[in-house]
Amino acid sequence: MEKCNNGSGRGTLSVVGTGPGAVKQMTLAACEVLEKADVIIGYKTYLELIPAFLEGKEVISSEMMKEVDRCRTALATAETGKNVALVSGGDPGIYAMAGLVYELARESANSCRIEIIPGLAAINSCAARLGAPLMHDFAAISLSDLLTPWDLIEKRLAAAAMADFVTAIYNPRSKRRTDQIVRAREIFLAHRAATTPVGIVTAATRENEKITVTCLADMLESEIGMQSTVIIGNSQTFTWNDLIITPRGYSGKYRL
Amino acid sequence: MEKCNNGSGRGTLSVVGTGPGAVKQMTLAACEVLEKADVIIGYKTYLELIPAFLEGKEVISSEMMKEVDRCRTALATAETGKNVALVSGGDPGIYAMAGLVYELARESANSCRIEIIPGLAAINSCAARLGAPLMHDFAAISLSDLLTPWDLIEKRLAAAAMADFVTAIYNPRSKRRTDQIVRAREIFLAHRAATTPVGIVTAATRENEKITVTCLADMLESEIGMQSTVIIGNSQTFTWNDLIITPRGYSGKYRL
Repeated sequence: MEKCNNGSGRGTLSVVGTGPGAVKQMTLAACEVLEKADVIIGYKTYLELIPAFLEGKEVISSEMMKEVDRCRTALATAETGKNVALVSGGDPGIYAMAGLVYELARESANSCRIEIIPGLAAINSCAARLGAPLMHDFAAISLSDLLTPWDLIEKRLAAAAMADFVTAIYNPRSKRRTDQIVRAREIFLAHRAATTPVGIVTAATRENEKITVTCLADMLESEIGMQSTVIIGNSQTFTWNDLIITPRGYSGKYRL
Repeated sequence: MEKCNNGSGRGTLSVVGTGPGAVKQMTLAACEVLEKADVIIGYKTYLELIPAFLEGKEVISSEMMKEVDRCRTALATAETGKNVALVSGGDPGIYAMAGLVYELARESANSCRIEIIPGLAAINSCAARLGAPLMHDFAAISLSDLLTPWDLIEKRLAAAAMADFVTAIYNPRSKRRTDQIVRAREIFLAHRAATTPVGIVTAATRENEKITVTCLADMLESEIGMQSTVIIGNSQTFTWNDLIITPRGYSGKYRL
């Protein structure tokens, strides 16, 4: 079954997740779509990670173009009958471009066919680099209050902390937004031990990858930036050989 | 930087995520590891999805073998110096084999090198098939109470519902466990409108894939089984052309 937006136009817009960075972390489907595309559109930083796919293509890259403009350009280009790949780092369906593309297509009555090609999100790639922190119920929360009221973000942080979710924090800190991660840590400390393992993965699988295993008490002593994802363990999470592991519950049932 | 368990033994155990089902949904890294492996171990259902990778390999497949035994066999085989791929559907780091492998390695003082090769989890693949439901903060909750007390699961469902997380429900129903999804729906109805969009994806990208777009009020009228993932939208989620879309907040800021 093909699931898309019922687009009847001639062109196709594929929103392609390229994963965390290394080309090897892309899916075969993502590679295939990029190879077949007439036009590849994306934020410069992401396009620079996939140079081999750009050769011989019409490439629309921009450092400064905003997400909304980029999606509009992609939709308009697909509407002319071309096969367009709009590149998204990570998974376009998780805090990325998929939703915005559909919102804009709806507003503009664009009739191209739209498909989402999933990729490894930060939660997938960062968890693998840290060991096995996401083995049990988890929450993903973005600390960016550009598009979301901070009160709602705090409410979600408190709910995740209180209900003992492993918690992956997206957009933990930028140059201008420095207080949110401090407040997030305070909220978790109200519900969880200071020794709770915390992993910080920056630029997973890229050349400048950095992996830090720390704990709630000490986490702010480590570098956290724009390319970082922070994973806070639950009450059962432990560290072993500098890995972070959340047990699933087998040990209680089977006596490992 | 290579991040693993500091294993000093000769063999390597790669825990490989094969994604939702279709070979095209695997990463290049996962394909490469399977091609290089001396031994491939996995649950029969998952191995049947990747026949091309098994040719000429030592394959250890079993219908009945339990997870704990399968991981122990994989660790012991890697300890003999072989390169072993332990196959996991989805992403081994999300409700799957990664944590159990590390727990058992720790208990048995196994010295093989262990690496986790992430794959598309159900959240990635099901979201892409439904449209764009996971564009904002979300929670993943398993309804299986085999290894987790039901009280804790209910607490997490209530927290996710109350704090307006989009919520992905893993293991919603099995032949024996039929009441949990009924109770989960009741908990969400206490905090969210009956019209809240709900997506049910069964066997994503496989031959028997089934995609249902429904709402909280009606969700129990649709088939939900062992291979299903249920995604419940947040208060802003809407449907369009039989897709489920959660806005990120751009419309408030930019007037789309």
